[in-house]
Amino acid sequence: MNDLQQYKQRKIVNDPVHGFISIPDNILFALIEHPYLQRLRRIKQLGLTSLVYPGAVHTRFQHTLGAFHLMGLAISVLKNKGHHISPEESLAAHAAILMHDIGHGPFSHALEQTLIESLTHEDLSLLLMDRLNRHFDGQLTHAIDIFKGQTDKLFLHQLVSSQLDMDRLDYLKRDSFFSGVSEGVIGSDRIIKMLEIKDNELVIEVKGIYSIEKFLVARRLMYWQVYLHKTALVAEKMLINTLKRAKYLSLNKIDVPAPPFLKTFLTHRFCSHDFLSNPQILDDFTMLDDNDIWSALKLWCVHKDKILSYLSSALLNRQLLRIELSDTPFDEERIQQLKKEKRLFNNMSDEEMNYFVFTDHISNSTYNVGHENIKILYKDGTTKDISYASDMLDHRALAKTVNKYLLCYPK
Amino acid sequence: MNDLQQYKQRKIVNDPVHGFISIPDNILFALIEHPYLQRLRRIKQLGLTSLVYPGAVHTRFQHTLGAFHLMGLAISVLKNKGHHISPEESLAAHAAILMHDIGHGPFSHALEQTLIESLTHEDLSLLLMDRLNRHFDGQLTHAIDIFKGQTDKLFLHQLVSSQLDMDRLDYLKRDSFFSGVSEGVIGSDRIIKMLEIKDNELVIEVKGIYSIEKFLVARRLMYWQVYLHKTALVAEKMLINTLKRAKYLSLNKIDVPAPPFLKTFLTHRFCSHDFLSNPQILDDFTMLDDNDIWSALKLWCVHKDKILSYLSSALLNRQLLRIELSDTPFDEERIQQLKKEKRLFNNMSDEEMNYFVFTDHISNSTYNVGHENIKILYKDGTTKDISYASDMLDHRALAKTVNKYLLCYPK
Amino acid sequence: MNDLQQYKQRKIVNDPVHGFISIPDNILFALIEHPYLQRLRRIKQLGLTSLVYPGAVHTRFQHTLGAFHLMGLAISVLKNKGHHISPEESLAAHAAILMHDIGHGPFSHALEQTLIESLTHEDLSLLLMDRLNRHFDGQLTHAIDIFKGQTDKLFLHQLVSSQLDMDRLDYLKRDSFFSGVSEGVIGSDRIIKMLEIKDNELVIEVKGIYSIEKFLVARRLMYWQVYLHKTALVAEKMLINTLKRAKYLSLNKIDVPAPPFLKTFLTHRFCSHDFLSNPQILDDFTMLDDNDIWSALKLWCVHKDKILSYLSSALLNRQLLRIELSDTPFDEERIQQLKKEKRLFNNMSDEEMNYFVFTDHISNSTYNVGHENIKILYKDGTTKDISYASDMLDHRALAKTVNKYLLCYPK
Amino acid sequence: MNDLQQYKQRKIVNDPVHGFISIPDNILFALIEHPYLQRLRRIKQLGLTSLVYPGAVHTRFQHTLGAFHLMGLAISVLKNKGHHISPEESLAAHAAILMHDIGHGPFSHALEQTLIESLTHEDLSLLLMDRLNRHFDGQLTHAIDIFKGQTDKLFLHQLVSSQLDMDRLDYLKRDSFFSGVSEGVIGSDRIIKMLEIKDNELVIEVKGIYSIEKFLVARRLMYWQVYLHKTALVAEKMLINTLKRAKYLSLNKIDVPAPPFLKTFLTHRFCSHDFLSNPQILDDFTMLDDNDIWSALKLWCVHKDKILSYLSSALLNRQLLRIELSDTPFDEERIQQLKKEKRLFNNMSDEEMNYFVFTDHISNSTYNVGHENIKILYKDGTTKDISYASDMLDHRALAKTVNKYLLCYPK
Repeated sequence: MNDLQQYKQRKIVNDPVHGFISIPDNILFALIEHPYLQRLRRIKQLGLTSLVYPGAVHTRFQHTLGAFHLMGLAISVLKNKGHHISPEESLAAHAAILMHDIGHGPFSHALEQTLIESLTHEDLSLLLMDRLNRHFDGQLTHAIDIFKGQTDKLFLHQLVSSQLDMDRLDYLKRDSFFSGVSEGVIGSDRIIKMLEIKDNELVIEVKGIYSIEKFLVARRLMYWQVYLHKTALVAEKMLINTLKRAKYLSLNKIDVPAPPFLKTFLTHRFCSHDFLSNPQILDDFTMLDDNDIWSALKLWCVHKDKILSYLSSALLNRQLLRIELSDTPFDEERIQQLKKEKRLFNNMSDEEMNYFVFTDHISNSTYNVGHENIKILYKDGTTKDISYASDMLDHRALAKTVNKYLLCYPK
Repeated sequence: MNDLQQYKQRKIVNDPVHGFISIPDNILFALIEHPYLQRLRRIKQLGLTSLVYPGAVHTRFQHTLGAFHLMGLAISVLKNKGHHISPEESLAAHAAILMHDIGHGPFSHALEQTLIESLTHEDLSLLLMDRLNRHFDGQLTHAIDIFKGQTDKLFLHQLVSSQLDMDRLDYLKRDSFFSGVSEGVIGSDRIIKMLEIKDNELVIEVKGIYSIEKFLVARRLMYWQVYLHKTALVAEKMLINTLKRAKYLSLNKIDVPAPPFLKTFLTHRFCSHDFLSNPQILDDFTMLDDNDIWSALKLWCVHKDKILSYLSSALLNRQLLRIELSDTPFDEERIQQLKKEKRLFNNMSDEEMNYFVFTDHISNSTYNVGHENIKILYKDGTTKDISYASDMLDHRALAKTVNKYLLCYPK
Repeated sequence: MNDLQQYKQRKIVNDPVHGFISIPDNILFALIEHPYLQRLRRIKQLGLTSLVYPGAVHTRFQHTLGAFHLMGLAISVLKNKGHHISPEESLAAHAAILMHDIGHGPFSHALEQTLIESLTHEDLSLLLMDRLNRHFDGQLTHAIDIFKGQTDKLFLHQLVSSQLDMDRLDYLKRDSFFSGVSEGVIGSDRIIKMLEIKDNELVIEVKGIYSIEKFLVARRLMYWQVYLHKTALVAEKMLINTLKRAKYLSLNKIDVPAPPFLKTFLTHRFCSHDFLSNPQILDDFTMLDDNDIWSALKLWCVHKDKILSYLSSALLNRQLLRIELSDTPFDEERIQQLKKEKRLFNNMSDEEMNYFVFTDHISNSTYNVGHENIKILYKDGTTKDISYASDMLDHRALAKTVNKYLLCYPK
Repeated sequence: MNDLQQYKQRKIVNDPVHGFISIPDNILFALIEHPYLQRLRRIKQLGLTSLVYPGAVHTRFQHTLGAFHLMGLAISVLKNKGHHISPEESLAAHAAILMHDIGHGPFSHALEQTLIESLTHEDLSLLLMDRLNRHFDGQLTHAIDIFKGQTDKLFLHQLVSSQLDMDRLDYLKRDSFFSGVSEGVIGSDRIIKMLEIKDNELVIEVKGIYSIEKFLVARRLMYWQVYLHKTALVAEKMLINTLKRAKYLSLNKIDVPAPPFLKTFLTHRFCSHDFLSNPQILDDFTMLDDNDIWSALKLWCVHKDKILSYLSSALLNRQLLRIELSDTPFDEERIQQLKKEKRLFNNMSDEEMNYFVFTDHISNSTYNVGHENIKILYKDGTTKDISYASDMLDHRALAKTVNKYLLCYPK
């Protein structure tokens, strides 16, 4: 973190993944201290995954500090290779990576499908960045431009957001570390040493090609073994159904107890315009974290609505639905049959059974060709997309979207 | 886990600290699945320490599994050295270590000083063990006897509870791992390899003496560097004051919003007799976890009582009071002076200022002579207390209780 | 190492890679104590690679103990899954893995191309195994049968020698550990947990497929980044040329000082028949280790033959030739030109220049289709080769032999 | 390595202990390339210890690079705390640490007692530094002054040589890493972060006191568990006796085969004056490394002198004498009795039996009071010796020299 060394170091944070992380005494420290950032201490990086991997309880706050640390290393490497990055640019890139996750709510993906339907966490991040920028008298403008990609130095944006950004380099390593899936560990140090800039874009020196292959394979492994682990999937689907039910009841005037900042989102369907016209909505959002969801589930365990109480209690005590995965869609007849056989209570309608018997599909591709590509820089100055540069990873296989279908039903 | 290998293995859990942990398909698996154990997933091992060490968000559930794993290793070592431990005894010792922490509430020490004044977490553990034993038709009687020390084979109790128990061996290693304070790492594998039994008691072979010295020094380091870190201390004191204030208001008929199972403890001062006569109280206790406290703090941020709202908001956003440590008590005059100078709002009484300006003391001794000692076994069959066996650790220094005084006040 | 637990444990060895390794008090301990095994303490696993990766000085002895340790884990896993492996079979498999590398000489590949032209290290291993078997009164017959694949239980042979044997699982992890190329680390624990037997053959449960993909990619990375690192390659080529020169001189009656057991191989071209008819030759071989080569290089530094002294001194002081790699063969004209330009001394013949200017090629394939395949076991009991089972690793790419050409010449 | 960043980085070395180590393109790179430094690749850091800990085969070369790396970190920390260290001073301190071990021969302590009686490795280091300085045209003068302590900035010397120098910080960590004795691991990163300068001397900030306590305890553990492990001790004693015998025979005109640069020291007793008057002696010394000793042992296995051949063969095949340790001297009568009982061959004289039955003593103190002390810096600017500052480590216990007596004899 050379550029930041002009500032007195304010604090050293112990990080089990990267060791000591230094924080300078300037706007970056003030940003970390802000409630919007502190809130990330209360949001787990991997949501319900700790139901499968008990160690995976690390937070978005830690991850943010980790990505911030890697940003310092990357900028230092690039400068040592002779590229000019001014102290202001360095500061802005650091600020951008600190803010990259502030729009995440608790159990992010579940939330986006239920309580906040019309905005993604990226939309929310931008709204919150604007507020922070006002709070800091416009000092974050450059950082926000880098985040948005509105900068001459595209590589600074790519350090924040691309298929090889500091975000990914930190989270793959961190998720692997905390879950105990040691095979997911990537050589982030080595990858960062191999960073270069060519035509204003981030590239990888050719001698780093095997590290990138391994990075892609490790990422794929983490997807199927951790992020899309079937037990974590069914738990997430159950949480989505629980929140959907709670919202359905609330919208139908049946009281569902919850803290007011959670209730806001149970009793309204906000569009993005609402967020802009009524600042209180975003205020409420910034109060939300994992604790409210867990605390609410405990209240809902004894709710008179059997669907809500059943799902809440099941999540709380980890009595999950059965889940099956398949490469092809499940037979509709079988689903209907399950809905008949697996009725949990008397007089359940088919519609109500949809909360317990359902199918869905997930997909993942190891590498997105054509989208913020990873480029390999050869010694003659030419570059090639990793999917073509690698003689092992077939570029069609790499780019292929893998689909899996899931079927859930009561045991 | 040799004794348990007669059972089909039910599950393998990934643990970042110990690797794979196998769980057999018998009562131990059923115990882990029980809501009383699952609840420990929602209670952090180190409470507010993650405000200082962001990685230290690991839970009592992980720790319980870890200590369970070490129990298997220890029993296997002792059997290989020729000591008879029957499958039933092994099972009971495993069950005992699984239950050793079930009486912990959220932020355990803070809770014991505020919401549940008359019972310790050990008392609560015993109450919950009795319930579990009834649930499992008396199958846990032997385990509970081992926990209480009511067993012929004292060493089984010592594996669960002594100055060298599996509890300590796991938590020192785990707390060190997650906090990133790598110096706290202990050689639990080596210590377990050195375990022996002499006169029915757990002892350490003499060649393990340096490992024990290092274990004691690492433990001491963890105390002063992590467990009693001054920032974690001030946060805990603030949480205690917040809960005290919430309880004071509640007992004085001022509504303090909280989930019902938390409200129970805000509105009553239960004695241990109450727990026995009214089973609902213990039911409510088993619903409590970290989430309720954090969620309540957010509600209390906007409470009309300024003391409650100030403290809640300060904790939430990590705007902590200043703290000073000293080897001698703080001057009473200075404290009174601070109470005058640091008034946060108009018209605060001295009594109210006690929430913000206060002194206290903490103490710790590295080793408790005479209490569940660590004994070294020499080759001639004699044993000696580690505090005398070690030629380096002065036994007076080891046993000495170190006192530190703290003074907190607004910045 | 359950089967071995019937024997009093003789010794526990600290291994930085796997932790404690237990050795039972039976023929396995006697085998490890034998001079043929002890000799492996003096042979580095990776020969000259430590010139590039200074940490990679680990020995074949450590590796042998590591593979022995993994054999215990693998047999324990297979038995827990219900497969019958008798104590005798377990012992034989352990003995087989202990002996698998005893035929290696110092700088194995260099030696095979110069001093011992007509036997591979596998041939030498078998000769030495026969001797050991006689020494141990035939107790190793079963072990040798397993090594040769002459056993009903093919999977025991595959644990010793196949594309997923304990040899590879140890060496990839160990080489990665000691070289510091942390990306090469493989999840050997997880892979072993996924081992199964189907139709008498070793297979991998389908849920281990990502671990195998990662294993193959890590192996490939280790090949190009460590085993075939160009600096290690040029050093090896130089050692080959040095030994060739020393042998050429010796065969032409020019004295080249060396210990007698090394001199034997400098002054004779033995065929495999010689080894059988004259036991002294094999005796001499068992005296050879890395030390003799290094010690000889120092003597040869001052030899009057300029070629020998130049090469010896260059290796000793790490003043290596320049090396270039290419995907296509180097131009013959360029090679001739270099031979003219780069003459090191007056009056060198073209033939003599061949020691300093030369080309060669290396090849490697990540996976050998059709040869001791890695098979994936599906839940329906069918199996499929990993190169077809993986939806990412294109089976043609996997199986493809990658060729690289190298050109070396003086700086 | 900030000061060195003005130089183009020449090379990055992978180190399994510290990660990537950068080497600048200046005199430091040239120094590392010099044969005197390259020679350290062929000298194991821990001599015969790998007979006990098979992983402990790391070299003095690796250690030198590691200490060099820590020097860069330490200087960077001190500069960030506001202390002025010029680029020239930084370079000189780096050069000094690179050269600190160049005087070590193979099996250093054994050698100093047999082949080179009148000079220590420190003496030899200084002789070689002078030669290097001439080779580099006086550019190393400042470095040598720092090494000798002849500098205004005493703390630079203390970074190279004191009870908390970079030498110790590297070797404790490295020896622990490679031996697999994980308990010896020290928090070198944290200790370096705590370095400060007070009155021109290196001190430790008071908050680092627990790290220092742990450093001392870990050091002590490594001494008794690794450096003075009884099996390593007996092997070293046997090597000393072997070399003594070889020298005795040589001096008595009985030919003992060895490479000429080893023979020099077998056939002469050089005094320090000889080294100065005859440069060839030092030249011969710089040719010596571990390989010559091992290679010679194999020649000596078949020597007609039974004492020499017995000892050589025993070392080679790890058939060591029995060793006993005791806190008090062994009884002379018992020793005489053993000499009578344990005669290995006919007609052995008592004097000859001294090679096989002998006693000796070893001693170690954890901390040397009054000699290059470790001082703790308090917040009020005062300093105190760690042995007084620590409330746990009794200063008498710390400073106490522990003596152990050893007795060796044939099994």
